[in-house]
Amino acid sequence: MKETPPTAKPAPARRRSLAGKSPKGAPRRRDEEVLEAAARVFYRRGYADASVQDVADEIGILKGSLYHYIKTKEDLLFRLLEGVHEEVGTILREVAAVPDLAPLDRLHLYVSRQVEYNARNLMRISIYYHDVARLSDERRRAIYKQRGGHEAFVAELIRQAQAAGEVDPEQDPQLLANCAFGNVIWVYRWYNPKGRLGPQALAKGAADFVVGGIRHSGAAAAAPAADLAA
Amino acid sequence: MKETPPTAKPAPARRRSLAGKSPKGAPRRRDEEVLEAAARVFYRRGYADASVQDVADEIGILKGSLYHYIKTKEDLLFRLLEGVHEEVGTILREVAAVPDLAPLDRLHLYVSRQVEYNARNLMRISIYYHDVARLSDERRRAIYKQRGGHEAFVAELIRQAQAAGEVDPEQDPQLLANCAFGNVIWVYRWYNPKGRLGPQALAKGAADFVVGGIRHSGAAAAAPAADLAA
Repeated sequence: MKETPPTAKPAPARRRSLAGKSPKGAPRRRDEEVLEAAARVFYRRGYADASVQDVADEIGILKGSLYHYIKTKEDLLFRLLEGVHEEVGTILREVAAVPDLAPLDRLHLYVSRQVEYNARNLMRISIYYHDVARLSDERRRAIYKQRGGHEAFVAELIRQAQAAGEVDPEQDPQLLANCAFGNVIWVYRWYNPKGRLGPQALAKGAADFVVGGIRHSGAAAAAPAADLAA
Repeated sequence: MKETPPTAKPAPARRRSLAGKSPKGAPRRRDEEVLEAAARVFYRRGYADASVQDVADEIGILKGSLYHYIKTKEDLLFRLLEGVHEEVGTILREVAAVPDLAPLDRLHLYVSRQVEYNARNLMRISIYYHDVARLSDERRRAIYKQRGGHEAFVAELIRQAQAAGEVDPEQDPQLLANCAFGNVIWVYRWYNPKGRLGPQALAKGAADFVVGGIRHSGAAAAAPAADLAA
């Protein structure tokens, strides 16, 4: 699963007890600690092969203590993926709320911010795309529904750009949107956080690529090379 | 794993015996039948959860007969992925051999042919990207090595286009190549073969997008929208 693994923190040596703390009463920090540990374990071993015991070992607590937070291994996966969707949903809402942006400028901002998020959260994004189908039907539908909002947002920006004469109106906005998501998402498979390319430079490069691809698809894409200098 | 599953053939009702046939002596057709069945089973159940018994059931033969072809479940995965690499390697060689093509036209042809291949082989491509990391070290390295040839080919075409003044020389060819692969590869996650978009229209759209993205990355991508009309 991992090709350019982010640094994985070793499990802390100290074995602590979480017994007696309910999920509601537990501090947010501990909750995050559990999800962080689950992310590392699922990323390293793959969700299918990982166990709740592995996650408990990663944190350095007893398995029984972990069951104060979750009922099943799938709960960990769902909460991880739900967390990703909350965060990328926030990005979408923030980008949508920026006033006075042309459609392709808004798309550039959206792609740039999502790519930077993906680059900074490689483990969770990797688990998301590798294991989302392992969620139970209802939970998977909940996740897919949120994802549909992103696809609709991007396709709508492309339609607006077509209406404004900035993109060839003959092009299929859904195809262009899917191409855009290929760029945004695939980052999790090739980006090396230890390489020379920082998350911001990556984000700008990917956003330039996507907006260039959308703006120049169709007739313009087949135009002679000289149009770069135009 | 599957979001837009291709049609899966039901297992044939007749239970046949392959006993006594060695892998070498077996007809090519039967060999292909075994790999086709393995692809369907791995795609449906996920490689991790699938068994050799499942594959035997899919073909309608005894498990023992299957062991005339392979020693382990991993052999099936490796031969599937090796087959994919042989086929996409053939595409690369054919595209490289076309005479008198400008670098970006050659890239357009390469992307178009690879995307069409991916669209027509969704199950195998899906297994490839989902489970390649499950191969043993040596086999995984062999597969990754072949993949490196594709990355080098695309990055080199981008460098040639930069040298010819067709692409902003400030852009990182490796970043652009990775963006291109995001488009080529991600098709397996969103393309619906039962939808209105045929493999050839998809391939042209994706290739236009990629070449547009590469040609207009950097300064050109930030140019005003009017440059579409230039």
